[in-house]
Order: sequence, then structure tokens, then C-alpha cells
Amino acid sequence: MDNPFSDEYFMRMALNEAMNAFEQDEIPVGAIIVSNNRILAKTHNLTETLTDVTAHAEMQAITSASNYLGGKYLQNCTMYVTLEPCIMCGGALYWSQITKVVYGASDPQRGFKSKMDSLHPKTEIVSGILAEECGELMKAFFKRKR
Amino acid sequence: MDNPFSDEYFMRMALNEAMNAFEQDEIPVGAIIVSNNRILAKTHNLTETLTDVTAHAEMQAITSASNYLGGKYLQNCTMYVTLEPCIMCGGALYWSQITKVVYGASDPQRGFKSKMDSLHPKTEIVSGILAEECGELMKAFFKRKR
Repeated sequence: MDNPFSDEYFMRMALNEAMNAFEQDEIPVGAIIVSNNRILAKTHNLTETLTDVTAHAEMQAITSASNYLGGKYLQNCTMYVTLEPCIMCGGALYWSQITKVVYGASDPQRGFKSKMDSLHPKTEIVSGILAEECGELMKAFFKRKR
Repeated sequence: MDNPFSDEYFMRMALNEAMNAFEQDEIPVGAIIVSNNRILAKTHNLTETLTDVTAHAEMQAITSASNYLGGKYLQNCTMYVTLEPCIMCGGALYWSQITKVVYGASDPQRGFKSKMDSLHPKTEIVSGILAEECGELMKAFFKRKR
């Protein structure tokens, strides 16, 4: 039997969070942090609601998972996020020493890859999971804004 | 008469915050955000206390000043911070479009300058204010840790 807990499975959960952001007129990015197939954090972008540029989905997910674990380092954890993390979030992921980051759509302009070759040496990076759906949601958001 | 509100004046306030961090066994970095010579935020590193890698002095100062101003963008604001901001904080400062960043000691290994040529095009950067004192406090901290 196939493992039901695939990267697609968790990315769909992150995408669901992004859709919640969309509904709240927030740039639609969602994130999930998982450890041993257990969800530790489920967040979406809240920069408008909180009037705080630091309230990206990833930042909240890191804070939330650390709080749950009672430790600063996200060992044996995977983040699923619908968009390539920006430099700020890439820097935070670096500090967290997270085990794995899986993202959906690429962000050539603002993504961490424009400045950083990698995250922490301990961190595996996977990209392109449900990339089209994640990217289409972003496009729909900015189309609505125009 | 000299302007009493010099860069040194506010950096000394940031250094005082860094000393509070030192007392709490936190990596001693302090930050201040000022607008029209008025203090909007006064913070220090809290990563150990909050078990949260995102709790750098700068991140908290940005959140706090935005909250005070009721807006995401830190127009007409200056951050004074005792250490060159890391990539995460550099990314957050970029998003905030802050008018000016003044830092004390350089951080060639972890500082934003290792990856980013600049912050936001709107942001002026000044470095080296009370650099020696800011750096000595860091050295004293890590010496105590060994």
C-alpha cells in the first residue's frame, strides 16, 4: 500500500491554509510543520491582519512548532510551504536547523534562492510539489487586486 | 548647541538593552526604533527565554513599532541595533522599508552583508557607531559561555 502521508498530502494541507489567507485578503501563502506525520503547526500569512511585515506563514509556523516542542531547534521536522520562502523566512529556517523544507511554487524575485545557495547544512530542500496550484492561487490573488 | 539626539545617544540606549540581554543570559543584542527623536520600540534578544529562533531584537522591534504606528511600513523611522542584523532580520528590515538602519559591531559571518548588498532601496545604512563597546559585550558573553 502506498504511504498516505506523501509530500502531496501535506502540501495540500498547506494549500488549504493559503486558501484561508486568500479568503481574508492576505497574500495566499500557507505553511505546515510536520514531525513523524504529526502536524505541529498550521499557519498562513497574516501581514495585513496584524499589520506586521514579519507575520509570514513560515515565521508563525516556526514560532508555533518551537512552542509546541519546547525547544528552539526543529529537529526531525519538515515544513511544507506553498511558496519558496523569502530571505527573512530563509534566514529563520536557517536558525531553526529544520530537517527538511518542501515548497510549492518558486519565487525567483523574492525567494531565498536569489541570495542564498542553501539553508542550514542539516536542511534538505525539495521544490515543485503542487507548484502549479500554489502558483495559480498567487496569480488569482494579484489579478483580483489589480 | 550640539544636537543631543545623536546616533551615539540612541546607540547607547540600544547597548543598554543589549546589557539587559546579557544579564538574562541571552546573546547580548539590543535594538531601538526611533521616529522624530521619539522611541517607538526598545527590545533585546529573547531567543532563549522564548525558545524561539525568530525572537531577535530587530524582529521584536519591527513588530512593536508597527503595532505602535498601526502600519506595516516604518517610514521616517530609524533602527539602532548593536550588531549587524542577520539575514533573517535583514529580510524583515527590507519588507519594512525602514528609512535608516544604524548598527554597531559588524558580523562578517552571519550578518546580512554576507548575502545582501543592501536592504530596501529606501533604506540608508550607517555602521560602526559604538562598534567597539557593542563588540566587546558580545565577546564577553561568549567568553563566559566557554
